[in-house]
Amino acid sequence: MSSTLQDSSACDPLNAHPFDRAIALNAIAPNATGGSDFRAIATPDYWNLVGPFGGMTAAMMLNSTLVAANRLGDPVALTVNFAAPMALAEYQVKTAIARTNRTTQHWTIELQQEAQTIATASAVFALRRQSWHHQEVTMAADVPGVESLQPLDRAAPMPWFKQYDLRPIRTLGSTREPQVSTHAWIRDEPARALDFASLTAICDTVMPWMFRRRKQMIPVSTVSLSVYFHVSGTELAAVGAQHVYTRSYGQICHSGFMDSNAQVWSREGVLLATTQQMMWVKE
Amino acid sequence: MSSTLQDSSACDPLNAHPFDRAIALNAIAPNATGGSDFRAIATPDYWNLVGPFGGMTAAMMLNSTLVAANRLGDPVALTVNFAAPMALAEYQVKTAIARTNRTTQHWTIELQQEAQTIATASAVFALRRQSWHHQEVTMAADVPGVESLQPLDRAAPMPWFKQYDLRPIRTLGSTREPQVSTHAWIRDEPARALDFASLTAICDTVMPWMFRRRKQMIPVSTVSLSVYFHVSGTELAAVGAQHVYTRSYGQICHSGFMDSNAQVWSREGVLLATTQQMMWVKE
Repeated sequence: MSSTLQDSSACDPLNAHPFDRAIALNAIAPNATGGSDFRAIATPDYWNLVGPFGGMTAAMMLNSTLVAANRLGDPVALTVNFAAPMALAEYQVKTAIARTNRTTQHWTIELQQEAQTIATASAVFALRRQSWHHQEVTMAADVPGVESLQPLDRAAPMPWFKQYDLRPIRTLGSTREPQVSTHAWIRDEPARALDFASLTAICDTVMPWMFRRRKQMIPVSTVSLSVYFHVSGTELAAVGAQHVYTRSYGQICHSGFMDSNAQVWSREGVLLATTQQMMWVKE
Repeated sequence: MSSTLQDSSACDPLNAHPFDRAIALNAIAPNATGGSDFRAIATPDYWNLVGPFGGMTAAMMLNSTLVAANRLGDPVALTVNFAAPMALAEYQVKTAIARTNRTTQHWTIELQQEAQTIATASAVFALRRQSWHHQEVTMAADVPGVESLQPLDRAAPMPWFKQYDLRPIRTLGSTREPQVSTHAWIRDEPARALDFASLTAICDTVMPWMFRRRKQMIPVSTVSLSVYFHVSGTELAAVGAQHVYTRSYGQICHSGFMDSNAQVWSREGVLLATTQQMMWVKE
């Protein structure tokens, strides 16, 4: 780190939440596009088998736009394409503003290590405003309360599991239904107020439908992840550090790829985000 | 057009299908990323109120990767972000290969006019291979046959409607259901064998769920569109110029934005593509 033009990292490295350490950007230089070139160091807390789990990479990339003083409003859509595993080492993020309109702003983002692309992303930001409001879907009435469920054993092999209080709901989404689904309550561990970055990561914590349908774990790897945000920053802040409920399902697995869809809900039944991904499947 | 290093346009401008004219790229120069810089001229056939309808812009951008001699396999995921309306004029497309792996390849794409960004996109290509196959969803058994339905009046105000034989299925997806849906059979008009570019465009032809729920048309505009392709090029070619069936639904409209999801099926019940978009809503 030879130069630090601006320090975006609000975190004290000793006392900060592991999530804030993981997304922290250490050195920033503005670039000609209105975006910035960042340098940062990967932290091991959210590691999966190879590299951080996809949700963390997505959160890192979104964060590089969230910290921009010239960003317009809140994120409404994010897509991240995963090109290669990230190493536990320094990484660079380059953001570019493709266009700023009156109420929307378009960003592109690239994450590199050793001059090789690890992931690409795009984000649409917008100034939200009053409009017709309608939820076509509602949170199932039979979702058991958080307190009635046991957290997943955090001695699980993947480090990233340890960073969540994840409570699978095994009574919902039976394989006897035509479309199997997986359900859970989740929050950061230790508890942390939900924001767009942590909501993005949570979108990738759902158990893929295929594991339940096939009654076994098969190696999978996300190639493309999209998140649609359905609340403003103010509305999201109201969730605080409470658990959110995730419901995940899918439509098809064919020729080495499967889709996965999910909804993320607040305890009050507000649909915070919807997400979909395309995953590579080993067999 | 001062130089034409390679002519990707297989189309005779007088006799070609309007779709092929609309996606044709006229002048190409390879660039340092492994991608190319293209120039082309917009055609009016697929026009919406301002600019071509989003599906056509998405098809144009995907086509810039499909024509690449160095592309790896078939597209599995495409995301297009719409930054500004396209003018009926010359446009430039720049593609870049972000990374090529053993079985996957990552592209980024930008479409510009007058040095301003009109749209950005990313595409993941892959070599498909045998794996577990399963469709969690099946085509509804009560979908009426194409021949039993009337094509939409092609004297509709938007030019792009004239380029499709679009047959809405009004007997499915009642507003009395908790989640309203819209249904149609569609093919290019004149008939044209389905390929990845035309399938992409068709993903954006579905009637948004909101129009049916509110029983009125409200101005909407796609800000981000993703398409997941669930068949190989060979499997797609088997559809030929037959109609495909689209089913569309959504989850939420809030603070000026709504989501929209759709499935595209062959007559034989093969799920060809799934798609989602985030739309700006006027009111």
